[in-house]
Amino acid sequence: MKIAILGSGRMGATLGRLWASCGHDVTFAYSRDRARLDRLAKETGGAAGSVREAVDGADAVLLAVHWSRIRDVLEQAGDLAGQIVLNCCVPLDDDDSALVLGPETSGAEELARMRPEARWVSCFNTSPSESFEPVFACKETGPRPHSIVYGDDDGAKDVARDLIGDIGFEPLEAGGLSTGRYAEPFAMITAVLAYGQPGGPALTYRFDKLR
Amino acid sequence: MKIAILGSGRMGATLGRLWASCGHDVTFAYSRDRARLDRLAKETGGAAGSVREAVDGADAVLLAVHWSRIRDVLEQAGDLAGQIVLNCCVPLDDDDSALVLGPETSGAEELARMRPEARWVSCFNTSPSESFEPVFACKETGPRPHSIVYGDDDGAKDVARDLIGDIGFEPLEAGGLSTGRYAEPFAMITAVLAYGQPGGPALTYRFDKLR
Repeated sequence: MKIAILGSGRMGATLGRLWASCGHDVTFAYSRDRARLDRLAKETGGAAGSVREAVDGADAVLLAVHWSRIRDVLEQAGDLAGQIVLNCCVPLDDDDSALVLGPETSGAEELARMRPEARWVSCFNTSPSESFEPVFACKETGPRPHSIVYGDDDGAKDVARDLIGDIGFEPLEAGGLSTGRYAEPFAMITAVLAYGQPGGPALTYRFDKLR
Repeated sequence: MKIAILGSGRMGATLGRLWASCGHDVTFAYSRDRARLDRLAKETGGAAGSVREAVDGADAVLLAVHWSRIRDVLEQAGDLAGQIVLNCCVPLDDDDSALVLGPETSGAEELARMRPEARWVSCFNTSPSESFEPVFACKETGPRPHSIVYGDDDGAKDVARDLIGDIGFEPLEAGGLSTGRYAEPFAMITAVLAYGQPGGPALTYRFDKLR
């Protein structure tokens, strides 16, 4: 799959690296530091480019920027009409201490309003990026941790499910984009548990049903 | 432990039954249907009474009413000064479809403002009440599911941890009362997964850390 990674922080860089190692064709874009994009491209056998170059012809776009950069990156990306966009952004304030949206809307829904022709799906936002490499490392053994996926476009969700599985998570169906009202705060819970409690940040979760 | 159960819906009734079967001395209070309280008392070997009777001398109070009843039940309970109150309420609107508080406050924090002398701790709100009996039934086998606990009073949290363990969950430390801003929406996620997805409502969760 041809994947555009918009944002080269820990989230974008880690997912891009792991997808590249699965054989996907990854293009890194959107960093204050162009050399960082070039390093990621070299390291993974992928490419580095402008947002527009990355997005053009991509089978999936990963949106992985700080919420404060959303308008800027979307402007560079254009209308994204018909493109599958995996959103892992949480609508945080500038010092990452609080959500700026909720409870009657969510980042997921606001993004869909900003680019109504894109095929939005939300995923990866409820797992700390530090968990991705350990999850990937043991994806052939043991029960897979869950990663919730939600959105209103079934085809986009199918693509997201495949890309979630490539990392080593079991995708867990969690409804439409409005689930973002609850999932974005849930992302904050995982942050509290990952960074605020002993044991390191590589937090995973599983939901199970008993009878 | 002498436990007051305020609210005799599924949440209060189930926890009261299970705690009684662990040997706790349970008093059921606050129902539109006094006969229901009497049946619960008879069934469990506990008591039924007014809110004030239940709360007087209780080692722990479980607050398990619909959010729309909070002011009324607190009025009947008095100032709850020095009393440990386990809150499992989520601030839902009248048809249980949306949160009425957030993202800059939470039910947990609002309750602490309403009764500042009570010793508040939040728990059980992120697990569907349908999970309690199955979790209890297998509490001696297998890994225990988690149940997050949060609050600013360490002694109250210790009591809550014991009572969470009695049901069969492993209590998971999740910070102070302000965690409610994220945990109450998380409760909505568990509802989406419990009631909106196949497999029945007895949803449990576990968080784990990888290295």
